[in-house]
Amino acid sequence: MDVDWIAVDWGTTHPRAWAMGPNNEVLDRRTSGADTENLRPEEFETALLHLITPWLSSEKTPVIACGAVGATPGWTAVPCNPRTAMPILSATKDPRLTLYILPGVSQASPADVMWGEEIQTAGVIEENPQFDGVLCLPGTHTKWVHVSAEEIVSFRTAMTGELFALLSAQSVLRQVVDGEDLDQNAFDTAVTETLSRPERLAQSLFNIRAEALLHGQGNAVSRARLSGLLIGADLAAARPYWLGQQVLVAGAPQLSALYSRALEMQGVPCLVRDAGALTLAGLCGARARLTEA
Amino acid sequence: MDVDWIAVDWGTTHPRAWAMGPNNEVLDRRTSGADTENLRPEEFETALLHLITPWLSSEKTPVIACGAVGATPGWTAVPCNPRTAMPILSATKDPRLTLYILPGVSQASPADVMWGEEIQTAGVIEENPQFDGVLCLPGTHTKWVHVSAEEIVSFRTAMTGELFALLSAQSVLRQVVDGEDLDQNAFDTAVTETLSRPERLAQSLFNIRAEALLHGQGNAVSRARLSGLLIGADLAAARPYWLGQQVLVAGAPQLSALYSRALEMQGVPCLVRDAGALTLAGLCGARARLTEA
Repeated sequence: MDVDWIAVDWGTTHPRAWAMGPNNEVLDRRTSGADTENLRPEEFETALLHLITPWLSSEKTPVIACGAVGATPGWTAVPCNPRTAMPILSATKDPRLTLYILPGVSQASPADVMWGEEIQTAGVIEENPQFDGVLCLPGTHTKWVHVSAEEIVSFRTAMTGELFALLSAQSVLRQVVDGEDLDQNAFDTAVTETLSRPERLAQSLFNIRAEALLHGQGNAVSRARLSGLLIGADLAAARPYWLGQQVLVAGAPQLSALYSRALEMQGVPCLVRDAGALTLAGLCGARARLTEA
Repeated sequence: MDVDWIAVDWGTTHPRAWAMGPNNEVLDRRTSGADTENLRPEEFETALLHLITPWLSSEKTPVIACGAVGATPGWTAVPCNPRTAMPILSATKDPRLTLYILPGVSQASPADVMWGEEIQTAGVIEENPQFDGVLCLPGTHTKWVHVSAEEIVSFRTAMTGELFALLSAQSVLRQVVDGEDLDQNAFDTAVTETLSRPERLAQSLFNIRAEALLHGQGNAVSRARLSGLLIGADLAAARPYWLGQQVLVAGAPQLSALYSRALEMQGVPCLVRDAGALTLAGLCGARARLTEA
């Protein structure tokens, strides 16, 4: 396997890497099982090596990384074209790689930051420079991105995925939402409830437990209600982004399906794309800029 | 020390017990450091004994407990007078105690449950049978209780304390809200924000992190904003309870101060009472019913 360069998406939860050929063909891919959220900056290189070592050789391999890496090399403020950001050379101890890190994107007011999602956005523009509209990038931290004229105009973040993970694994709700099944009708109802009455959210969450205790509400309904209430709250906050727009949704497949279902219930037409493919397209663009520079 | 009976408040986080004399004088008090939230029902007796063993003797001591004990002996549905609930004899292995557990209170629609707060409510009515109004009992799960004619008419629960604990200790916000200081102005602003625009909550939470990263927002402000956003969401949901009412707030002193401050900003007059004293008054009432029965 002749690895020309390595693309890395250093997400909060599951860092991913691609071994790339000289014509940007994917030779191999790996996902880390490590918990990178609690990494200290000085631990980043070891964790990165753990992910990409099988692809390193005696020659220096260029590695281009986006996301919440240990030492963030700063932010580019909006409005900005995410396809013009130059990867920044970053010091490493291991002589087998040359590490480049992409800067994140910041917004002064309302204050917001992204690391990694700007590369997905770049990927959308790589594929369609005419794209004018809104991206919904659901995940641990869901991003809503307004794109126009090849620029990120504005964006906002909701902690929807992280709230769902904390509440479903560690709160008093954990027993009643345990499992994988999701009742679609219950999800739809819960989304509509929070969108129409967002002020009720604080009480609706505990109500999930009470319905299970008193009325035998099953886990598939309880889990769907928790998901629907939180995605409904996310959509309520993001209404200025999606109202009257076409939205491109790109996240993990199951999560994208839930967001696009919730949006389509509001009459919003959605396109669903694979987030990984967009990230890779964005990283390939960054690789081209580096080669041309 | 001649312990006549033992009062137990088995809260989700910090179980408390009082050693009581024959005239309901408090001889001693203890708080458990154990994590009771994850107790299995069969582990309850051991945990209880760990808390009260110093007070047990060769004679059987009556123990009256309220709260989320291992085996809940059912619920009384609203409307109900919490001063009439009879403690229910519960089996124990240890011969040194006779354990009585108070039933919780349930509400069919909107589905809700309480274990323990009905005894605080009973304590309010013990002290003032004429009480007609609203109790706000902040804690892990904040309860809003409408009391009239010595009855609990209706109530609702918000997971405010649990959300604050999860987000401040385990989420991406944990580093920026670390500490004890709370900026009062930032708290006030955040409460007002969620009360006037509850639909923005989902994005306001992540904004705390971004303000810290981009604009150097200090931890005392960040922590106050997290607290204020969540208490604001709680108040937004509970508006039908407090609007145009006098509210009696009873929780831990710091938390009661925050809730009464937030309510008074909305023009709601508040009385603040010590939650422990109310619980004890309620348990003394239950002891009297048991003796008279």
